Amino acid sequence: MSQPNTPIRIAINGYGNLGRAVELAVHNSPDMELVAIFTRRDPATLDTQFAPAVAIDEAEKYVDLVDVCVLCGGSATDLDEQTPEFTRLFNTVDSFDTHAKIPSHFATVDAVARETGHVSVISSGWDPGLFSLNRLMGESVLPAGKTYTFWGRGVSQGHSDAIRRIDGVAGAVQYTVPVEEAKNRVLAGETPELSTREKHRRECFVVAENGADLDRIRQEIVTMENYFSDYDTTVTFISADELSQNHAGMPHGGSVIRTGETSAGVTQVYSFDLVLDSNPEFTGAMITATARAVTRMVAAGQTGAYTVFDIPPAYYSPKSGEDLRAELL
Amino acid sequence: MSQPNTPIRIAINGYGNLGRAVELAVHNSPDMELVAIFTRRDPATLDTQFAPAVAIDEAEKYVDLVDVCVLCGGSATDLDEQTPEFTRLFNTVDSFDTHAKIPSHFATVDAVARETGHVSVISSGWDPGLFSLNRLMGESVLPAGKTYTFWGRGVSQGHSDAIRRIDGVAGAVQYTVPVEEAKNRVLAGETPELSTREKHRRECFVVAENGADLDRIRQEIVTMENYFSDYDTTVTFISADELSQNHAGMPHGGSVIRTGETSAGVTQVYSFDLVLDSNPEFTGAMITATARAVTRMVAAGQTGAYTVFDIPPAYYSPKSGEDLRAELL
Repeated sequence: MSQPNTPIRIAINGYGNLGRAVELAVHNSPDMELVAIFTRRDPATLDTQFAPAVAIDEAEKYVDLVDVCVLCGGSATDLDEQTPEFTRLFNTVDSFDTHAKIPSHFATVDAVARETGHVSVISSGWDPGLFSLNRLMGESVLPAGKTYTFWGRGVSQGHSDAIRRIDGVAGAVQYTVPVEEAKNRVLAGETPELSTREKHRRECFVVAENGADLDRIRQEIVTMENYFSDYDTTVTFISADELSQNHAGMPHGGSVIRTGETSAGVTQVYSFDLVLDSNPEFTGAMITATARAVTRMVAAGQTGAYTVFDIPPAYYSPKSGEDLRAELL
Repeated sequence: MSQPNTPIRIAINGYGNLGRAVELAVHNSPDMELVAIFTRRDPATLDTQFAPAVAIDEAEKYVDLVDVCVLCGGSATDLDEQTPEFTRLFNTVDSFDTHAKIPSHFATVDAVARETGHVSVISSGWDPGLFSLNRLMGESVLPAGKTYTFWGRGVSQGHSDAIRRIDGVAGAVQYTVPVEEAKNRVLAGETPELSTREKHRRECFVVAENGADLDRIRQEIVTMENYFSDYDTTVTFISADELSQNHAGMPHGGSVIRTGETSAGVTQVYSFDLVLDSNPEFTGAMITATARAVTRMVAAGQTGAYTVFDIPPAYYSPKSGEDLRAELL
C-alpha cells in the first residue's frame, strides 16, 4: 500500500475506449500515478499516452508495484474471467454491467478476494454505479414511492451492433431516447405504470450497402425481438460520410427519479441526471475515483468484494475528512 | 443494540415540525418502532400520534430502551447544546445546518461520542445531507469542473422571520427562487461565474398592519443587509386570509450541479434535484434513514461523530446486501 502523500499506483487492464478513459482520468488525478497498461495485444502495437503497455502475461511481475488494477476489459465476458484472475494478484475495480449476472460475479470475486486478502469493487461506473446509488438513496429516504430509470439520449453499443449484423448493413448507430412526456409526468410527481414503449424510443441511423433492399432492412430492425420490437423505432438511412461526421461520438446519460409521498398528498420528487458528451470518459472517471476508494478500504483493513453500496462517499475524494466537512457539507 | 429482525428503537427529542416529521417517518418504517418523544414542554400538552411524550429530564431512564435518539431541536442553538448532551446517553442523529459552525460542532460531539462509546451522525438532511453527498461525488468524479448549488423555489424561515421583525408587519412568507436562466446555462454545460444576485431571487408575501406605511416596509425589506440587499427582491402585500390559504405550506428543494470536462471540449453534466412539497417531512425522512444507518455503524463497532460522507449507502436501507445487489445495482 501507498503511504499517505505517496501517489496511488494504478494499473489498467485493457486498452479500448474505457482503458483510454481511465488513462486520462488517472493522468488528471494529482494523487495518482499510472504504472502500466496491460494488454492481450502485442504491446508494441499500442499507442499509449502516459504509461508503458505491458503484455498481460507479465502482470504478475507488477504485484508489488501497483495498488489498484482497473479492469477495462471490453465486454462482460472478459470481466467474468478477468476480474477473478486479476483479483488474485491485485486490488481491483471493474464496471461489470450484466445486471442478471451481478450476484454470481460478486460471489466469485468475493471468494478470490477473501482468499488472497484483496479488495475488489465490482460494477462501478454510472449504471451500474451512480444510478444504483441514487436508486438506493431514493427508496431509502422515500419508502412509499416508485423509482424510474430513463436512459439517453445516448448511443447503445449493443443495439448498434445488432443492426450491423443485418445483411446489407454497412454501418449503424442506435440512440436510446427517453420519452419526454413520460419523464415529465414522473418529474411532476405522478407515479404512472409505464410500458417499455412508453419509456424509451429508439432512433437508428443506418448506412446500407450499395443496392441493398432498404425496406427489408428497416423491417428487420423494427421487428427484431428483445432489441426493437417492443419500442417505437425510427430508421434513417444516411451516407457513410454522414455517419462518421455526425455520429462518431459516444454521448449518453439518463435520469433516476424517485417520486414518493411522506404523508397523504405530500409529494416529494428526488431526481438524478447525467448528460454525458462521452459515456466511456465519464465511466472511466467514476471507476478511477472508485480505485481511490479501494485504497481507503484496504487501509481500513477490509478484504472481499464490494459495490458502490458499501463505500463511504468520502473515500472517493482526495480530500481529508476535515476539508470535506468544512468545504462541502 | 437491537438484534437482527427486532425493530430499531427510536426516540425523538423535540416536537416541532421536524419532530412530527420523524414521528411519521418512523411510523412508516416497518423495521423501526418509536419509543418516546422527549420534550422541554409539559408532556401533557403535546398531542403526539405514535409514542408518548416524555419530559426531557426523564430521558436518562430510556438509555437501555432506545437504539438511536433523533434530535429535532428547533434551532442551531438547541443542537449546539443538545447533540453533545444527548450523545452522552444515546446514539444520535441531528440536522445541524449552520455551515460555518459544523467543524466545531463535529469536534465537540466527536469527543463525547468517543468518551461514551456512541455513534452520532451530525448534519444529515438534504442540505447539509443529500446535497453535500452530491457536491462530494460530483467533484470526485469530475475533478476539472465547477459545482453550483441552487435553492428553491422554497420557503426560507430565516428570511420570513427577518421580515416579521419589521415594524408594521403582521405576517410574512419569503420564497427563495433560483434564477432559471442561470440554472439552465449551467445545465447546458457552461461554467459561468455567477454573483449572488444572478443565482437567486427573493419573493416576499407580506401582511401589513392596518395603517402601516407600505412603502417604508418595502424599502426596509429590499435594503436589509445579509438578507435582501444583494438580491432582486419583490414584495407583494396580501391579506392575512391569503397568507394562511396560499402560503401555509413549507415547500422547498433545489439542485446541485457539477459541470466538468473529462478531456478538452468533452463536457459532462452531473445534476441532482429535489422538488419538495414539505421541507420538514423530507428532512425528517432523511434523518430517519440516517438513524437506521447509525445502528449499522454501531453494529460494525464504530464510535465517534460522523457525517453522511462517512456512511456506506447500504446502511440507509432496510434491505440486505444480497437484495440490494440483485434489485438495485
